[in-house]
Amino acid sequence: MELINYFRSSASYRVRIALAIKGLAYDYTSVHLANSEHLGAAWSGTLPAALVPVLKVAVGDGDGGGGGDGGGDGGGDAVLTQSMAIIEYLDETHPEPPLLPRDPLGRARVRALAQDIACEIHPLNNLRVLRYLVRELKVSEDAKNAWYRHWVETGLATVERQLAAQPATFCHGDTPTLADCVLVPQIFNARRFEARLDHVPQTMRVFERCMALEAFSSTQPSKCPDAE
Amino acid sequence: MELINYFRSSASYRVRIALAIKGLAYDYTSVHLANSEHLGAAWSGTLPAALVPVLKVAVGDGDGGGGGDGGGDGGGDAVLTQSMAIIEYLDETHPEPPLLPRDPLGRARVRALAQDIACEIHPLNNLRVLRYLVRELKVSEDAKNAWYRHWVETGLATVERQLAAQPATFCHGDTPTLADCVLVPQIFNARRFEARLDHVPQTMRVFERCMALEAFSSTQPSKCPDAE
Repeated sequence: MELINYFRSSASYRVRIALAIKGLAYDYTSVHLANSEHLGAAWSGTLPAALVPVLKVAVGDGDGGGGGDGGGDGGGDAVLTQSMAIIEYLDETHPEPPLLPRDPLGRARVRALAQDIACEIHPLNNLRVLRYLVRELKVSEDAKNAWYRHWVETGLATVERQLAAQPATFCHGDTPTLADCVLVPQIFNARRFEARLDHVPQTMRVFERCMALEAFSSTQPSKCPDAE
Repeated sequence: MELINYFRSSASYRVRIALAIKGLAYDYTSVHLANSEHLGAAWSGTLPAALVPVLKVAVGDGDGGGGGDGGGDGGGDAVLTQSMAIIEYLDETHPEPPLLPRDPLGRARVRALAQDIACEIHPLNNLRVLRYLVRELKVSEDAKNAWYRHWVETGLATVERQLAAQPATFCHGDTPTLADCVLVPQIFNARRFEARLDHVPQTMRVFERCMALEAFSSTQPSKCPDAE
């Protein structure tokens, strides 16, 4: 497997955590987002949405489902996009340790927590969105940072209410799940932009618990081969 | 089951389509988003993120997994949030007809297509985001509409490349999936804001094919009890 990613991309970090929890080896390929390397011609064939991460997997090798008519280009590799879809794929093809609970209600809760971050916070603070604010809407640096913090702080408050309603060791239960893979990178982003975090104590407790695990700490941005 | 939703909310429409494909009956409860009804005290206990849709399900009744320790409040109902998580829950508890392919690569492709819309287009054009642009950033009506169309048009171009690379009756294969449940409501939004759609012919072909089905046409915004 080859992970095409960028050390500071939080969506990339989600997948690095999942790969580490599963104990899966992979080749690490870096695309420098801040330098717009992902927008260049060299990557246009590999990154369908000019977004990272992308996971390349050899078809028939660990796809667990027979046949490669699903996500590939008909060749030897399948190119998987979207971090949550990639993590669910890893969980289906390498079930242990599981990243989703067994019961449907628990799975729904974990997916909803992940989506509370991946659909409500992160998209608003993506690099290309911040660039649009500055370049097209002529928003000041201060207003851009306030925008960033607003979505982080209000979005994490939603997560906090749900964690506080059903406290557990991790986001859900006593082992890390998809929700933790998505939460932890968001906290790194929040700190980088100096967002408030004192209003989300349950969330920060879970964050610290995760960071005590090798799978989360060894894959953090500063430990990546392309870290600056 | 009770679906708390709003006729014009595209995330709500996704779930209405899935419920219709599964042939599941439900109570329709409307929350008027445009009037900010969802932000009022009456709803604060039921809508954890002040977002719709929310699906209330009786615990032990159709959860298919025994036990209700997952998504609820410990009472008789579980409150499910986030449209894609709700649809996956419906698919797990009511497997026929399936809304995801059987093979892991196919499932990854369908989830990624859904997330290309639900994580890259829709969050940027949510009502609360448009309000922030206008109220906090003092963006003009024209600039707000240009923002809306920018994310729809570039985001759908990403979807189009993937559909064109692997053409099928629907987004993936010859039956509707989660990806179609997410795509169709996005096209309704695109049309409402007069976004360009002539650059995404495969996408529009799939859209028209979906709309020929009762599950998509009978649940569209204009057919809802609270339609204006």
